[in-house]
Amino acid sequence: MGVDPGLTRCGVALVESGSGRKVTALDVDVVRTPAAMDLAERLLKIHTAVEHWLDTHRPDVVAVERVFAQRQVSTAMGTAQAAGVVALAAAQRDIPVRFHTPSEVKAAVTGSGRADKAQVTMMITRILGMQTAPKPADAADALALAVCHCWRGPLNDRMEEAAAKAKAAQDRHRARLKAAQEEAAAR
Amino acid sequence: MGVDPGLTRCGVALVESGSGRKVTALDVDVVRTPAAMDLAERLLKIHTAVEHWLDTHRPDVVAVERVFAQRQVSTAMGTAQAAGVVALAAAQRDIPVRFHTPSEVKAAVTGSGRADKAQVTMMITRILGMQTAPKPADAADALALAVCHCWRGPLNDRMEEAAAKAKAAQDRHRARLKAAQEEAAAR
Repeated sequence: MGVDPGLTRCGVALVESGSGRKVTALDVDVVRTPAAMDLAERLLKIHTAVEHWLDTHRPDVVAVERVFAQRQVSTAMGTAQAAGVVALAAAQRDIPVRFHTPSEVKAAVTGSGRADKAQVTMMITRILGMQTAPKPADAADALALAVCHCWRGPLNDRMEEAAAKAKAAQDRHRARLKAAQEEAAAR
Repeated sequence: MGVDPGLTRCGVALVESGSGRKVTALDVDVVRTPAAMDLAERLLKIHTAVEHWLDTHRPDVVAVERVFAQRQVSTAMGTAQAAGVVALAAAQRDIPVRFHTPSEVKAAVTGSGRADKAQVTMMITRILGMQTAPKPADAADALALAVCHCWRGPLNDRMEEAAAKAKAAQDRHRARLKAAQEEAAAR
């Protein structure tokens, strides 16, 4: 499941990953909350909608866009909060949550981390073999996030595993070094 | 209930408001989550702890610090997400959530919107007649938020009511003006 978080429009999409790079779109929607609504109520509405998606579809993993404060400062806080309640809903069901940056998503589906919204929409329509382009952009972005995770997920997991192994080896080396130093000092 | 949101340390405090400016501290704590923990798991831990506070104490209102992206960009996103799951927990129980800026909180308890952490801690200890200063700063900040809301809350509500009335009057004026213009154009 891919989620493009936002208070005004939160894109949610479900994609099935097949063999190789085969991906199929199963469902896509945009959860909307009015700007005039109380912030806590907006978060509640998004959380409830995502809970419904999770309970209906039971996805293996939820891929969420990683929000940066540097971009669009005025809306970044609300976007981060929407992403937070989405991640919470997944954690409440023991469903793993993975974050991908906008440039990772763009690179995965278009080949360029600097692709614009139109290019992402065009490519995701083609990749998923959809008859019409998903609208609005938030729907296309949610699909792109899900596809990005299907394609990058295993790579990321392998990279994290390798990093963890390297760290463990370094820790063992440091422990041996410390023991040798202590032994030398004790002589 | 006052909440100073944060992923690493989230201050929570319960204050009872009496007649005039009389305030009494009932409880204060800091919810901690390790930086090495998965983000979704950290949000789940904070949400669960806040749920327990809300269900145990049934506060009338939850006052949360308003997070700005401009300050401490590296931690602002996590802080916003923590604030988001706190607001959600309250909304799930129909408990109103109100936000106060750090300078509003400082001004309410010290008289200056630019007071430092030490001044806030000193004043909140004095205001609440506590034997020892609350620690860490997140605990003091949560108490300060609760006190700020007790003192500012009614004022804020009156200001919001006045602003809503003014806007309604302006909307009526604009509607009359538009009707008059259309009537003139139709002649």
